[in-house]
Amino acid sequence: MKLYDVQRAPNPRRARIFIAEKGLPMPELIQLDLMALQHRQAEFTAVNPWATVPTLVLDDGTAIAESVAICRYFEEISPEPPLFGTGALERATVEMWNRRLEQGLYTHVAQTFRHTNPNMAQREVPQVADWGEANRPRALAQMRMIDAHLADGRPFICGDAFTIADITGGVSLDFARVPKIAMPPELTHLAAWHGRLLARPSWNA
Amino acid sequence: MKLYDVQRAPNPRRARIFIAEKGLPMPELIQLDLMALQHRQAEFTAVNPWATVPTLVLDDGTAIAESVAICRYFEEISPEPPLFGTGALERATVEMWNRRLEQGLYTHVAQTFRHTNPNMAQREVPQVADWGEANRPRALAQMRMIDAHLADGRPFICGDAFTIADITGGVSLDFARVPKIAMPPELTHLAAWHGRLLARPSWNA
Repeated sequence: MKLYDVQRAPNPRRARIFIAEKGLPMPELIQLDLMALQHRQAEFTAVNPWATVPTLVLDDGTAIAESVAICRYFEEISPEPPLFGTGALERATVEMWNRRLEQGLYTHVAQTFRHTNPNMAQREVPQVADWGEANRPRALAQMRMIDAHLADGRPFICGDAFTIADITGGVSLDFARVPKIAMPPELTHLAAWHGRLLARPSWNA
Repeated sequence: MKLYDVQRAPNPRRARIFIAEKGLPMPELIQLDLMALQHRQAEFTAVNPWATVPTLVLDDGTAIAESVAICRYFEEISPEPPLFGTGALERATVEMWNRRLEQGLYTHVAQTFRHTNPNMAQREVPQVADWGEANRPRALAQMRMIDAHLADGRPFICGDAFTIADITGGVSLDFARVPKIAMPPELTHLAAWHGRLLARPSWNA
């Protein structure tokens, strides 16, 4: 098993943290250099025409792209501990929260970064600075909503159990430092939750 | 069971088509008027603070938001026919394709619509016309990639079986007519696939 990876990028991190939380051995990591546009070269697009990282390649050559699809593969082959929930209602609830955090916080942080960072000009064509800046207050609004959600004292996004939604949210908060979207200090529930995530051994995967 | 719905919006359509494909009775539909910003009023945000439609409310009052989370709930309580795949590899593959179509085609169509349509000015603040227009060629590029993927003669996105990825892709193609992103006529595989979807009884759900 091989995992096409970019060490510092947020999406590959989601997959690596998930694998570590499962207690599974890390697949062989193959680093791609996004600045050199290595992901758009034929050698990689033959594996994944969508040119996205991470991409998992099984021993028979089958490629699975998209971080959450990779996580789902590992959930299916190694169900414990369950990180997508168990039973209909829990699975739907984890899916809901993972998507809220991904389409909300993650997307707004990523769009701010992609459209305001000069290093992204070659990959994000055209960069639209106004769009990047429009995402900054939206990312902050999402932080406030997540803080309010955590105000009931729940340790994790879906309650007592750590799930993939925590991975998506925590990685997004880490990523927010790159486009300098600072967590407002009054969001103490958000900060406490982030601290719980940073303390997990998986977080350095 | 109640489903907060917007008859003509693409995301609620995904949930309704999914329920119809399962052969399940449609929950009681409660229409929200997005133009009147009804989804942002307290009556609805008390049900779903994220103010997104569709939102499913179970008989005990539990709310499940996000189209795909709603679909997953129905998949879990009514597994046949499987629309998310069966077994680890199939489930990961369906997840991969659903996400490719959603983060690719669907997102580019939606962003073109949201940022160029005057009727969206009140809901998309600020509208960034340059960003809307930047998404138009990206939507077309995704159409070309999906056409190439279908060139091997497969009837559906994941092969022989209809899945949620077909729902996401087909609804995106329908939605593309609103911001006038026309399907290039040379994409015959894409058009044939779209025709197969339009012919399904579920497509009018």
